[in-house]
Amino acid sequence: MTISEHVPESNVDVLIIGAGPAGLMAACWMAHCGVTTRIIDKRGTKIFSGQADGLQCRSLEIFDSFGFADRAWKEANHMIEICLWNPGPDGIIRRSDRIPDTIVGLSRFQQITLHQGRIERFFLDNIKKYSNDTIKVERGVLPESLEIDETEVEDQSSYPVTVKLRHLTDEEATPQQQISGSKISDGLFRSNLTHTDDEDDLIRKNKSRAGTGEIVHAKYVIGCDGARSWTRRALGFELLGEATDSIWGVLDIIPITDFPDIRMRCTIHSTENGTLMVIPREDKLVRLYIQLKEVTPDASGRADRSKISPDSIFNAAKKILSPYKIDYEYCAWWTAYQIGQRVATRFDSHERVFLAGDAVHTHSPKAGQGMNISMNDTYNLGWKIALVAKGIAKPSILSTYQSERRKIAQDLIDFDHRFSRFFSGRPAKDIMDAEGISMGEFKEAFEKGNLFASGLSVNYEPSNLVSKAVGESKEVLSDATSSANAFTKQSLAKGLPIGMRFNSFKVVNQSDARPWHFQEKLRSTGQFRIVVFAGNILSPPQKKRLEDFCEALGAPDSFFRTSATSSPPLDAPIEVLTIHSAERVETNLMDFPEILHPYNPHTGWDYDKIFVDDVSYHEDTGKAYENYGVDKERGCVVVARPDQYVGWVGDLEDFKDLQRYFEGCLMLSLRA
Amino acid sequence: MTISEHVPESNVDVLIIGAGPAGLMAACWMAHCGVTTRIIDKRGTKIFSGQADGLQCRSLEIFDSFGFADRAWKEANHMIEICLWNPGPDGIIRRSDRIPDTIVGLSRFQQITLHQGRIERFFLDNIKKYSNDTIKVERGVLPESLEIDETEVEDQSSYPVTVKLRHLTDEEATPQQQISGSKISDGLFRSNLTHTDDEDDLIRKNKSRAGTGEIVHAKYVIGCDGARSWTRRALGFELLGEATDSIWGVLDIIPITDFPDIRMRCTIHSTENGTLMVIPREDKLVRLYIQLKEVTPDASGRADRSKISPDSIFNAAKKILSPYKIDYEYCAWWTAYQIGQRVATRFDSHERVFLAGDAVHTHSPKAGQGMNISMNDTYNLGWKIALVAKGIAKPSILSTYQSERRKIAQDLIDFDHRFSRFFSGRPAKDIMDAEGISMGEFKEAFEKGNLFASGLSVNYEPSNLVSKAVGESKEVLSDATSSANAFTKQSLAKGLPIGMRFNSFKVVNQSDARPWHFQEKLRSTGQFRIVVFAGNILSPPQKKRLEDFCEALGAPDSFFRTSATSSPPLDAPIEVLTIHSAERVETNLMDFPEILHPYNPHTGWDYDKIFVDDVSYHEDTGKAYENYGVDKERGCVVVARPDQYVGWVGDLEDFKDLQRYFEGCLMLSLRA
Repeated sequence: MTISEHVPESNVDVLIIGAGPAGLMAACWMAHCGVTTRIIDKRGTKIFSGQADGLQCRSLEIFDSFGFADRAWKEANHMIEICLWNPGPDGIIRRSDRIPDTIVGLSRFQQITLHQGRIERFFLDNIKKYSNDTIKVERGVLPESLEIDETEVEDQSSYPVTVKLRHLTDEEATPQQQISGSKISDGLFRSNLTHTDDEDDLIRKNKSRAGTGEIVHAKYVIGCDGARSWTRRALGFELLGEATDSIWGVLDIIPITDFPDIRMRCTIHSTENGTLMVIPREDKLVRLYIQLKEVTPDASGRADRSKISPDSIFNAAKKILSPYKIDYEYCAWWTAYQIGQRVATRFDSHERVFLAGDAVHTHSPKAGQGMNISMNDTYNLGWKIALVAKGIAKPSILSTYQSERRKIAQDLIDFDHRFSRFFSGRPAKDIMDAEGISMGEFKEAFEKGNLFASGLSVNYEPSNLVSKAVGESKEVLSDATSSANAFTKQSLAKGLPIGMRFNSFKVVNQSDARPWHFQEKLRSTGQFRIVVFAGNILSPPQKKRLEDFCEALGAPDSFFRTSATSSPPLDAPIEVLTIHSAERVETNLMDFPEILHPYNPHTGWDYDKIFVDDVSYHEDTGKAYENYGVDKERGCVVVARPDQYVGWVGDLEDFKDLQRYFEGCLMLSLRA
Repeated sequence: MTISEHVPESNVDVLIIGAGPAGLMAACWMAHCGVTTRIIDKRGTKIFSGQADGLQCRSLEIFDSFGFADRAWKEANHMIEICLWNPGPDGIIRRSDRIPDTIVGLSRFQQITLHQGRIERFFLDNIKKYSNDTIKVERGVLPESLEIDETEVEDQSSYPVTVKLRHLTDEEATPQQQISGSKISDGLFRSNLTHTDDEDDLIRKNKSRAGTGEIVHAKYVIGCDGARSWTRRALGFELLGEATDSIWGVLDIIPITDFPDIRMRCTIHSTENGTLMVIPREDKLVRLYIQLKEVTPDASGRADRSKISPDSIFNAAKKILSPYKIDYEYCAWWTAYQIGQRVATRFDSHERVFLAGDAVHTHSPKAGQGMNISMNDTYNLGWKIALVAKGIAKPSILSTYQSERRKIAQDLIDFDHRFSRFFSGRPAKDIMDAEGISMGEFKEAFEKGNLFASGLSVNYEPSNLVSKAVGESKEVLSDATSSANAFTKQSLAKGLPIGMRFNSFKVVNQSDARPWHFQEKLRSTGQFRIVVFAGNILSPPQKKRLEDFCEALGAPDSFFRTSATSSPPLDAPIEVLTIHSAERVETNLMDFPEILHPYNPHTGWDYDKIFVDDVSYHEDTGKAYENYGVDKERGCVVVARPDQYVGWVGDLEDFKDLQRYFEGCLMLSLRA
């Protein structure tokens, strides 16, 4: 850029750098909350195949909260069972165990596999719909410099982050991902069988701008630009940790084989030839992960990738699978990489520039965690930035991004370390073989790993968004009212641990008798939710308790009345949902205080706020109170954060503590 | 058209006249089977709101077989409960009963409501996808004449039906549906809230052709052009029956009301003011059906519709609902009509021109049957025409369209007659009031009506597609082997009555342990399916029986080898699916004869053909044999027609009878 050139300048609330799953998740929040946003990516096209493919239960719950889990669920391969194969005394592999891939009862979803290109397509469609096509990925755009004006970072009306962008020419924007020496494309530009993307989405480059620069002033920048993150380097942050000497080869093929478990998720240990992971995919594809034994790192510690080809990877797989035969004609994608296990020193700068996904953590592919943890990073971050940018939440909530997510990244690396040994190690020959890994040990590790890998064991530490005592995560069910940091009563809802995601059980709509998984009502709108477990409202004393709570909630100085108003699509910062435990047919909507089913002069009463824990005709319902650990007579009150994590639990009488929770995180002021 | 004008002529396999749900269902079959097809509609745009809205279980099963039930299921309102309201001794209405809207256990779906415009949208998207955009609705096109060359109707290579078409100008194609005297539009040109249609789908008129004519020579014509069908008149067929004196008003509103069951399906009888039906809909809408008392037909028997307005309809509803209050601001659509109960004399001419939907039957809206029965007409017809046009099936199967569907139309009218009395009648004041209708009687009629209305009680009569004895429909479970007309053993699969749709229970995929509702595997591809209940294949004698069956199936002179080859997308006329009853973990795919999981040299073994009736981790499975009434040791063989109706049941040894079934309906010849 020369000085004489006219460089356009503009302001934007949020600038997202990188349009992979983490960046798209952030953009999705902004679309749903109505925050002015730009998202750029240096690549000229979206991807079509290969790359990450495993979707964990929690990621599907999140997709569902935005409204597109059904698309992934329908197209994907469902992984139901893990088969463990090991050598017998004769050295020949045989199936030694079967375990369920997803722990039964943990979530209404199960783990599925679908290639990253489709997942990005679902995000793009959803962002388009909810932003009215105002948020579009700008491809072929490269950030060149990033500056934070430290004098302005406290001023919420300012745009303290300045980023220079350059619009690439076509040649510059075409990535070179073909690994030399290979005859098979790595698939980046090849459509993945039947699903087509709209041409104009593929290359959304602004051709008239090619080769020019521009300056963007942003309130917030989110760097989701991968393991070699430009944003991270611009901030001068480092990834701590080290590369392992594990080299993994990956092949996406349609296998022709007599191996009976080729459509199961398998881990196959061989005596001499290493370990193979089999991940069945959509459209007849199967992904093979092979830890390559035959590639030795050079003096610099890096393996020479030119020695790796689809053939060398496939030959390694063939040896492991022997005596079963395997072959293929169609290969959709392949790659090879050396695993680093690293976490960034910091996740944000001045709570104005944030890093997420591979930019702050790298690890092995064994548990299929990369894409999931990355999307969960920005699912945690997005609503916080959106609510602060809209003046609804206090800027102080932004510090919880690093405190909540850096811990997860570290847990992930620890998990990866522990898990690696089981893959890299040689199976024990017998019980006396101390260096080998016993298969009992392996199975146990796998089962524990599955809970972590589901994404459902996440338990956030105390903060102004999580009202519990320090250390309470470890003893989830103790009451914390005595602690200075908390004003919460975990014991009233033992099945809803504070700091964990709101578990889902089926309830029935009071007004139309339709059963719902309650989580379906905790949509990602940006709203906090007060879930009123109203108890048995046919009991007059209990009804009085409910009425008193509702009166406090509706008082002019209640947080519910003094929280900031918002603009569409985020209509109100807080929604109230009710689950009562009386019989549905003995109660009517009109029996409940109006604040629980608000009246709109144009459209009447709201029929979608009050639910009942009762039996229904077609589905197994009526166990929500029991599963949530809530007393059916007396109920309780629970706060769900906009990301479905439990923030507070209290009695119907604990309105002051509830007020205190929202004073801690929302901007409150008496309205004129 | 003047003689001097050049009139273009062309051939097409199938010409569909009318692009409502019945016409689109026919086009959908043609898209899935790969049959050259044109579909025309005289209207210039698709509809956006109003009209039919109830989708019965069977319609959803059909949508699912094409791949789009999920879209309807997600957007629609789910109707769970019917509330019956009646006057008490004081004349004030009260809830007298609740019954489930859909009979529990009947189908994996339940009744839903969603406006016709969305349903047409799902069809259009599906037709576009499966026809590779070759089948498009041509709007603003009017048929002007239809001739059948009787000398050519027996020649399968001929195009004996000649239709002259005229491409309308914009003015001609814009319907006048506004009812005079009304201030509210009837909604034909108003978008229904949030869902948008692509602009170019709205008006697919070929502008350059406006005002010109063309001549189309078709193998088959399907007239789906409504109650005033041009096609029916062109054939000279009549509707037999008569108009009732029932005038119904319909309003789609967002109600503002304290009536507690406004989100339930309700029938409200008042003492003096008639009957109101409440049908809750998507997007906060509620449809009110009111039988209007105050409009008297004129001398011609027709009511003067100019006396009817939204206000007059709404005032009638208000009176019935009193003492509850109801009001509205938003009305999406309204109409009023006089009900005729009529069935056409014939459903086809020379088995070359067929009529379907409202063109051959009209009736009241009370059971929400119109759109459903109409779509089921062409669901029955479409595959028959497609398979005959492709040279796969014998032309003689086409006569079953009239024999199967005319009976349903007559049943529908009978049902409507019986049901009408309960709506038009006055509630009995007490047990001595013989002219009034007792509420017990009403409830009983409603429950019986629900089974009919679900679409799942359909039981087709014997034909070359339904192998059972005449009269067997009434005694479903008798064996018919002694009958000259049948060669079938119903007793081997008591839960799969021959002539009824293949009921669905959950099974587990042998290769990847994924549970499926078995019906999900009976997709509408145009294929007949042989469902092999393989029994306990771990028992050597049973395995031998299976192997013998498979050997007969694979023999060069078996129907399976001599049926006509087909072109994509209909790859083969017959698919074989297997459900065995041994334990999944004790069996492998490779234990089964290859014909049950065919090998493809490019993609390996087929992993999607063999299922097991066994328990699974996450879902309730393992009861399929029991529910289908099949012996778990010995199994049996069942034929499902391309439309999922059961055509034949026999033993593994009854290969000759199976051969005879297919000889009756398919074109067979030894291959060179």
